[in-house]
Amino acid sequence: VLSLIAEPLRGKQGRLAYAEPIQSQLAEVEKMFAQQMRSKFPYVDELVRYGCLLGGKRLRPILLLLVAKAVGKIHHRHILLATVVEMIHTATLVHDDVLDMATMRRHCETVNERWDTESSILLGDFLFTRAFHLASTLESTWACRLIGETTNQLCEGEIRQKGNQGDFGLSEADYLQINDAKTASLCSCACRLGMPEKGDQQKLADRMASFGRYLGQSFQIVDDLLDVIGHESVAGKSLGTDLQHQKATLPVIHLWSQLNHKQQQLLEKVLRGPAAERLAHLVPMLRRHGSIEYARQRALEFAEKASDCLQGLPQNEATEMLQLLPEFVVHRVR
Amino acid sequence: VLSLIAEPLRGKQGRLAYAEPIQSQLAEVEKMFAQQMRSKFPYVDELVRYGCLLGGKRLRPILLLLVAKAVGKIHHRHILLATVVEMIHTATLVHDDVLDMATMRRHCETVNERWDTESSILLGDFLFTRAFHLASTLESTWACRLIGETTNQLCEGEIRQKGNQGDFGLSEADYLQINDAKTASLCSCACRLGMPEKGDQQKLADRMASFGRYLGQSFQIVDDLLDVIGHESVAGKSLGTDLQHQKATLPVIHLWSQLNHKQQQLLEKVLRGPAAERLAHLVPMLRRHGSIEYARQRALEFAEKASDCLQGLPQNEATEMLQLLPEFVVHRVR
Repeated sequence: VLSLIAEPLRGKQGRLAYAEPIQSQLAEVEKMFAQQMRSKFPYVDELVRYGCLLGGKRLRPILLLLVAKAVGKIHHRHILLATVVEMIHTATLVHDDVLDMATMRRHCETVNERWDTESSILLGDFLFTRAFHLASTLESTWACRLIGETTNQLCEGEIRQKGNQGDFGLSEADYLQINDAKTASLCSCACRLGMPEKGDQQKLADRMASFGRYLGQSFQIVDDLLDVIGHESVAGKSLGTDLQHQKATLPVIHLWSQLNHKQQQLLEKVLRGPAAERLAHLVPMLRRHGSIEYARQRALEFAEKASDCLQGLPQNEATEMLQLLPEFVVHRVR
Repeated sequence: VLSLIAEPLRGKQGRLAYAEPIQSQLAEVEKMFAQQMRSKFPYVDELVRYGCLLGGKRLRPILLLLVAKAVGKIHHRHILLATVVEMIHTATLVHDDVLDMATMRRHCETVNERWDTESSILLGDFLFTRAFHLASTLESTWACRLIGETTNQLCEGEIRQKGNQGDFGLSEADYLQINDAKTASLCSCACRLGMPEKGDQQKLADRMASFGRYLGQSFQIVDDLLDVIGHESVAGKSLGTDLQHQKATLPVIHLWSQLNHKQQQLLEKVLRGPAAERLAHLVPMLRRHGSIEYARQRALEFAEKASDCLQGLPQNEATEMLQLLPEFVVHRVR
């Protein structure tokens, strides 16, 4: 059973220890990302360079590189694909920040705050298209196909989420399905791309894809929790953003399911009421009905399912780090 | 020399005659586009289906199919790639409409008007990613690479255009370069994709790419002209949109270059002044300085350059239609 009170896994120079077996390759990804985000036109260059500063955790490239290293050697195509998945992820963050009207992201101003909505749309499009182009420089269309499919699922998930705005009676199954599309799919894709396209390890490749999927689901639930009970200084972004945009998150969905009709009407009033008082009213209700604990427990379950998928990997340093990741994801909430 | 007073080239059932040699294949493109723009989730489905109704002229698929037919047989991959380029084009239109805050497009409400900005962003992303995925189902990465590169150029052009907002002293060379990136590149890509990847017709393939590039440039200049002197009922969208967003278009760039400093300051006042009076003030100035005629002449020159590129094509019905296209593009302005 994973502990929820693990200490942050930090190594030298503040780098997260789980990235240590792949530190030099992660630096190559960073370099390739920076190279891609350039333009010979000054105005374009200033905007697109900012793209590298967003994101930050580099979870998806780390997943891809760790999987590749766990089963063999890291090749140039892994560096390239790790860069591609991070570019795709960053594109969705940039467009998300417009949807959420967010002003801060990872302790940086968002593009819509520093520039405007138009710049955010165009920077996101630049990232998407440059990422697809980079993927297409590989010999086989396999990665393009997987990345195209995943990215489209991601968009579909975002649209569904928007369609469910304000529907706090959303079922947990629908909620999980939306998370799966908008978050878990790209983590799964990253893990799958760390494995060879063909060969005799297809079952292991499927398990790695599932590892990413469960980890991503766990990650998203934790993110939802952090939006309610995290500290702004830790999360690096404004709290209560999901609630502000009337997104039904797991704690709220659980709370809703515990209430009678009259209580639900009251909760709806709080959720649709003044932003300043929303969290102050909501958090005690969540705690009283065990909804924080419930969501935390679900996150933990997905993290454990993720861990189970790692059986069959050769025992080495990269595998050890993959084993630490689910724990790292859930320890963010206490 | 091309005539600017050609009658609209309409065939049976109101279809444009130049599409006649490829009408059944164009119908296949329409069908594939409609199939791609579906989702099993009702809210997503309603939004993405609307994507097919935008656009309308289908110029890029027509280019691709006519080129393919002019040099040989139309294969399944041509239908697929024609669908891909139209999806990419539609994605940029949907995001453009947010940037321009446009309310009408081809006699339809824009997505931002009917839904909102968020839906426009997500529908555009859905179109981009679904298009890339569709392209990646082909065997070779060649088309993915060409489409990825072109689409990224397109974004770069859009960002440059935004960077030059309000700069009416923009040089004609920069203006043409931006047009080339944001409009001509995708027309060029469509024509190139109508030709085989490899083989003994590389020079002809390059000429076809140039044909699309010149045609696209001509098309964009005519579009700029229509924004100033077109009729809303004909253009199917609001007039004066470029001016409203302080985009320097060719007629304005020419006018600017004809004025002394004091006159330029006056012009700037008009351009930055109340929207209601802008066109009424501007159009007589443009006419007085020959700026409308100048832009029309430039459009005509690019159309003629496009026509010149068609030499070397086998003489057949598709080639004849390609020969009519430059004329069709410029006859939109009289």
